[in-house]
Amino acid sequence: MKNVHGGDIYRNRIDLDFSVNINPSGIPKSVKAALYKAVESCDKYPDIEAQALKEAVSSTLLIPQEQLLFGNGASELFMAAVHALRPKKTMILAPSFYGYEYAAKAVGSEVIYFFLKQENDFLPQEGLLEALNEKIDLLILGNPNNPTGKKLDQTYLRCLLEHCREKNITVVLDECFIEFCEGECSIISESKEYEHLLIVRAFTKIYAIPGVRLGYLIGSDPLLLEKIKRHLPEWNLSTFAQKAGIACVKEHGYIEETIKYLKDEREYLIKELRAMGIMVFAGEADFILIYTKKPLYAYLLTQGILIRDCRNFKGLTEGYYRIAIKSHKDNQRLLKAIGECNE
Amino acid sequence: MKNVHGGDIYRNRIDLDFSVNINPSGIPKSVKAALYKAVESCDKYPDIEAQALKEAVSSTLLIPQEQLLFGNGASELFMAAVHALRPKKTMILAPSFYGYEYAAKAVGSEVIYFFLKQENDFLPQEGLLEALNEKIDLLILGNPNNPTGKKLDQTYLRCLLEHCREKNITVVLDECFIEFCEGECSIISESKEYEHLLIVRAFTKIYAIPGVRLGYLIGSDPLLLEKIKRHLPEWNLSTFAQKAGIACVKEHGYIEETIKYLKDEREYLIKELRAMGIMVFAGEADFILIYTKKPLYAYLLTQGILIRDCRNFKGLTEGYYRIAIKSHKDNQRLLKAIGECNE
Repeated sequence: MKNVHGGDIYRNRIDLDFSVNINPSGIPKSVKAALYKAVESCDKYPDIEAQALKEAVSSTLLIPQEQLLFGNGASELFMAAVHALRPKKTMILAPSFYGYEYAAKAVGSEVIYFFLKQENDFLPQEGLLEALNEKIDLLILGNPNNPTGKKLDQTYLRCLLEHCREKNITVVLDECFIEFCEGECSIISESKEYEHLLIVRAFTKIYAIPGVRLGYLIGSDPLLLEKIKRHLPEWNLSTFAQKAGIACVKEHGYIEETIKYLKDEREYLIKELRAMGIMVFAGEADFILIYTKKPLYAYLLTQGILIRDCRNFKGLTEGYYRIAIKSHKDNQRLLKAIGECNE
Repeated sequence: MKNVHGGDIYRNRIDLDFSVNINPSGIPKSVKAALYKAVESCDKYPDIEAQALKEAVSSTLLIPQEQLLFGNGASELFMAAVHALRPKKTMILAPSFYGYEYAAKAVGSEVIYFFLKQENDFLPQEGLLEALNEKIDLLILGNPNNPTGKKLDQTYLRCLLEHCREKNITVVLDECFIEFCEGECSIISESKEYEHLLIVRAFTKIYAIPGVRLGYLIGSDPLLLEKIKRHLPEWNLSTFAQKAGIACVKEHGYIEETIKYLKDEREYLIKELRAMGIMVFAGEADFILIYTKKPLYAYLLTQGILIRDCRNFKGLTEGYYRIAIKSHKDNQRLLKAIGECNE
């Protein structure tokens, strides 16, 4: 269990944490205000039906309320989904977020890895469809994928979903980083066409509130949603989560500004890293996967900088690191430190 | 699912909520301060191992850290326990908290009810031991029980635990209200002697923070605890929950003052209710179960007062109500309104 995730600032002395992928813009002011205000109503039970939150998210996303399910972070929704589905065989792409495997194995599912190839730019392509046969019950994948930041082509995704329907495979699509990507790339507006699709999203990354714990699931099969809900504890959403979520979806311009900022900063980082001879896999999220022979992790730690050593991602090896995109000043400091690190 | 719990202040116009059993002393100042402070660190992931919280609770309760498991409220721990145990047959006392049944049925367990009798003062006695045979996998019960407020005799509880060990029955003992009771009544100091015992507690009621979501489980079988933990999502504890929990256990005198206050106010309420001809089942928690032919629920609602109509508790009928013990002024207002209600 050691180091399967980034962000362990509790057992390291860290000055700058580049290991977690939180929106560098920070918590929106209105959301912080809502959190402060929420303290005053903590002596009351949170709404067991999260009605106000459900209404706010539903009207913002144009998704009917009955197609929404809220969780104590995306991780609770992955767990509830596998508890409801109890898949015998689960396919997971490698590399991808460790949480998928963690959830699948909680119910004893056999996990079959589909290894993404560096030469294919870490994109799944045709091979994945061939691997998804009738023996697979569940496919869990991220769009964009973590740690590669690679987004699926929309046409490919539709093709994949049709294939999974044919083979009777439920698809859990993790869109926790999709709001960092430019242009139309989410499948949520088409979700009602795929009764076997469960889209998971979180407020965690895009609104920079990992401490609050709030995620949601979109699905168009009401029976499947009810089944998943039945595995969630009652009152799974704190007062903080409900109030913050409402404030988040009322934010205007925050996501657009984030996308714009990230685009510039991502280009800057990629250019500078490549100039230093570091291999960069240019994705579209708020993080970048790199490869280098330099002992980056250990050296940066001596400088108080934490990055994500990706050697324990299945499908990656020593030398791969994931770095978050942070403020320009922080990014400059990271680049300077990387420049000082010798092979 | 309608009205299986009290406290639905979100779909009723309520001035005074006597339907939920929250410490009338309110959130301790230090805990509120910790919650305000927590807002500032919400942009960081909460500690996935909740190390500081674990240490604080461990040293306060004198329970080794490895015997503690924290959850997003007690309800998450009930759910995780049944996910880990997957009992075929679960015994639940009637009446008792609906959440036990809700959890057991999530994994498709058959639920067998042991009906408590009014003439036995709603205490289980010998009959329960006889009913607990080899076919039962799990017993879930509360001490004190909700909605009766009745505490189990310590000798009886030890006897019950020995019997369950013999019959290979895991026991989930809900101690969420035990800190409201006077004297030595918790079994936690003996928990290491019962490897088949899981004690569940919450910060919710005693520290008046239902909006925060924090509970814990005490168990002496490390393998069983690990198994239960495996069904909890990662990062299940928010930053608010972790910081508030630490502040809670550092509070001195708060629980003692609460017990003292409740004792006086309970006696006052019981005396006055009985004087009005209402049947009172005097328990020891921060609530009181009563029986009357007056249409109390509907009448009090017209006065902006919500109480818990207990007719949908298995084992109770129309006429049973649970009322929380609140501030003296609020209690006086409740008594006045009850006095005005005619049969």
